[in-house]
Amino acid sequence: MALKNKKQDNFSEWYTELVGETGAFLADTRYGIQGAIVETPWAIQIIRAFEQMLEKEVEADGHKPMLFPSIVPEKYIEKEKEHIKGFAPELFWVTKGGKKELKEKFFLRPTGESQIYPMYSIWVRSHNDLPLKQYQSRTTVFRFEPTTRPFLRGREFNFFEAHDVFKSEKEIMKQVKKDMKYTKNVVYKKLGLPFIFVKRPQWDKFAGAVNTYGAETLIPDGRVNTIASTHNLGQNFSKAFNIKFTDENEKEQFAWQTCYGPGIVRIMAGLISIHGDDSGLVLPFEVAPVQIVIIPIQKTEKKCEQLEKKLKALGYRVKYDNSKNTPGWKFNEWEMKGVPIRIEIGPKEIKKNKLVLVRRDTKKKETISEKVLEKKIKSNANALLKNIRRKAEKSLKAAIKTAKTLKDVKKILENKGIARANWCSMDKKGEKCADKLQTITSGGKVRGTLFDKKEKAKSKCVVCGKKANHVVYIAKSY
Amino acid sequence: MALKNKKQDNFSEWYTELVGETGAFLADTRYGIQGAIVETPWAIQIIRAFEQMLEKEVEADGHKPMLFPSIVPEKYIEKEKEHIKGFAPELFWVTKGGKKELKEKFFLRPTGESQIYPMYSIWVRSHNDLPLKQYQSRTTVFRFEPTTRPFLRGREFNFFEAHDVFKSEKEIMKQVKKDMKYTKNVVYKKLGLPFIFVKRPQWDKFAGAVNTYGAETLIPDGRVNTIASTHNLGQNFSKAFNIKFTDENEKEQFAWQTCYGPGIVRIMAGLISIHGDDSGLVLPFEVAPVQIVIIPIQKTEKKCEQLEKKLKALGYRVKYDNSKNTPGWKFNEWEMKGVPIRIEIGPKEIKKNKLVLVRRDTKKKETISEKVLEKKIKSNANALLKNIRRKAEKSLKAAIKTAKTLKDVKKILENKGIARANWCSMDKKGEKCADKLQTITSGGKVRGTLFDKKEKAKSKCVVCGKKANHVVYIAKSY
Repeated sequence: MALKNKKQDNFSEWYTELVGETGAFLADTRYGIQGAIVETPWAIQIIRAFEQMLEKEVEADGHKPMLFPSIVPEKYIEKEKEHIKGFAPELFWVTKGGKKELKEKFFLRPTGESQIYPMYSIWVRSHNDLPLKQYQSRTTVFRFEPTTRPFLRGREFNFFEAHDVFKSEKEIMKQVKKDMKYTKNVVYKKLGLPFIFVKRPQWDKFAGAVNTYGAETLIPDGRVNTIASTHNLGQNFSKAFNIKFTDENEKEQFAWQTCYGPGIVRIMAGLISIHGDDSGLVLPFEVAPVQIVIIPIQKTEKKCEQLEKKLKALGYRVKYDNSKNTPGWKFNEWEMKGVPIRIEIGPKEIKKNKLVLVRRDTKKKETISEKVLEKKIKSNANALLKNIRRKAEKSLKAAIKTAKTLKDVKKILENKGIARANWCSMDKKGEKCADKLQTITSGGKVRGTLFDKKEKAKSKCVVCGKKANHVVYIAKSY
Repeated sequence: MALKNKKQDNFSEWYTELVGETGAFLADTRYGIQGAIVETPWAIQIIRAFEQMLEKEVEADGHKPMLFPSIVPEKYIEKEKEHIKGFAPELFWVTKGGKKELKEKFFLRPTGESQIYPMYSIWVRSHNDLPLKQYQSRTTVFRFEPTTRPFLRGREFNFFEAHDVFKSEKEIMKQVKKDMKYTKNVVYKKLGLPFIFVKRPQWDKFAGAVNTYGAETLIPDGRVNTIASTHNLGQNFSKAFNIKFTDENEKEQFAWQTCYGPGIVRIMAGLISIHGDDSGLVLPFEVAPVQIVIIPIQKTEKKCEQLEKKLKALGYRVKYDNSKNTPGWKFNEWEMKGVPIRIEIGPKEIKKNKLVLVRRDTKKKETISEKVLEKKIKSNANALLKNIRRKAEKSLKAAIKTAKTLKDVKKILENKGIARANWCSMDKKGEKCADKLQTITSGGKVRGTLFDKKEKAKSKCVVCGKKANHVVYIAKSY
């Protein structure tokens, strides 16, 4: 059990292999619809773990869970034309029930706005109903995508969306910052995936929104992967869907809205591709379906069983691998699956009352006494997370390079990097430059300006040469 | 805030009102597709609580989670014709993507077999892969139902399904018993909903199965509500979908299968309708989104805040209702929502260092000292569950009446009961009698024979008058 492809040499093949049956087996793409994958127990257990972290974050901040159907009546899309125009080519239509044509056909939701806001317009009446903060998770959405890739782009995929309604404009940007924090608390702090948080240019915002903000990780093939986004919807949707409230002075007002979506499958893709290595997955301790694997070397079954029982009682997810495979085979298998800590027990160790502990990321072996085992598990779990986060952060930083010319940009992107460059305008005026940029760099896009740090442009736009007013980040993307 | 309809007088209106916005607001039926409801935070929190209990049950018994898409390729249904014939009139078809007709159309799953088993036929190879026990939860299925009712019958509804593959026939019935136990542990023990567990007649089994077993609760309008079912699939599906394994002697064999589905929304309907009363929902402590509500009588805010903090720290889901409504209004609201325990604090109580505790089911008031509060919460939570379970059990028992003639059956069903009667045959031979029964009783159906208790028939079939070989339970159903 070993990967045929190296991450460095052929990222794309390495990723496909690691995701598939001969790798860590996270998804089965042999299901009969392109882009609709089957998620295996190993994947689902990881995904659930960080989904629950995200649920906890938004609930701690006052969001309540809700559940909408996956099917949306056609009439709902007539209300927000700009929004739905953006999604129209991707809609799947249900036209038949049994053998009959449906009188009113419906579509499968590509995202929640057009189905949720008609209900919000019923639920929101007075300022006392606001803020209304609700979310749904462990649901799916559907998009008729031309090209697909497991966990990166699918025709049906896991979804998480929070939809907030406020009574004043000033609450909008507060919420955007909170959303960024939820993402940071889970994706960066607990999963060790660093990102840059950008404000998108006007020509690339969410259809119908005032502004879009995105958290971008970098996949090692040099393409950015948006793992969360928040949209400032202003009053655009409340006007389209008639979400009104009577304020403290009994006056009717249109509400202010945001929506937030951490990309569940995208986060999974980040975990696989950013932390994974040539031996397989590398999982943070907190989300690993098996946190500790115990492997006997020769006849040490009894000791292994005792230890498994003890660690289970302490609340760890532990597996004693008593299969008939050789120790070497087991090492490879559990490394492939990304199990953070391996304990090896041989007769030599039993004699000395010791254990061998191996950490997945560094593969370093350490002989310890059983007395300090729990302490060592904790410190190794922490050290693993810190190490993979530090490595990922270093890679991301190293990949961001300042470009002075369009030629520089092209070169940086060719070298799998993100270009930092001066740019004329983030309004529609800058779109022509963006089009040119995309053609010249074969797909490079202005991802946006930094949200949490104001950067001052000093020189000229890398495309048109006119005065630069912004510092932007340019990359190819998924 | 009070219900206009009484449960006893007009169950149907009472149910609709309790589920809706002027009741406990569990579902919004104003969404634009018939039978596709929006589940509110209150409903979702209750449902999640017992879903997690069921997940725990099946996982403790070795099931692993998986996740399949909601969409199924047309080609998958050609494999098991008998099965799909049963579902064909209910299938929703996706025929368009964007503006284009899809080359290969697909349908929305009405249940998981036809999508899961093609993958099982890839995954199962050797006897070492068996038993394969996997499940998916918090997913949805879709059925083009003519009539719909929130949580009882929908066009899209919450789903939970476990699919098990075994290497021998003898494991089948062991699993059926285990499935019954999962249901009992959660639905009966924790939610207080009693049921009878029956083996269905051959003419009413799951399409394609060898046998079907169902857990039936009784809705107070006299119709039974199946809250879980298990199907013994024998080798029918493994032969249709080619699920084979090589046994210990290197011989190829078709596998043996079961599938189990606790009806998530049906359980919710049971909770609402069986425990609910004229003041609203009555929730078992363990699944209540708010377990304890604290209501101040006059100016006792400080004390209430202290108590809320204390109880939260102890791990309870507690809410201090500091809204501007009157105490009476608050009492009604939280009774409607089914909150198990209410604490009232007035100046009189503060003076005496006492609290008033009110239990939702009995509405009995008890003045207690704060010292014994935690003990009292626990004992009241237990007593509430025991009481509502006992009451439900009593109702179910009282509703089951022995019928000697078809006239008896008719009368029992008219009085909202379940008839226990002698019956000729559970094979296809008995179907004619079943058809006649259904016509004469306007919808009465043979639900089956008891699974966990062998009952001996003594006399003649209530319909045809031929020798009775079985004792069956007859009821109208949802």
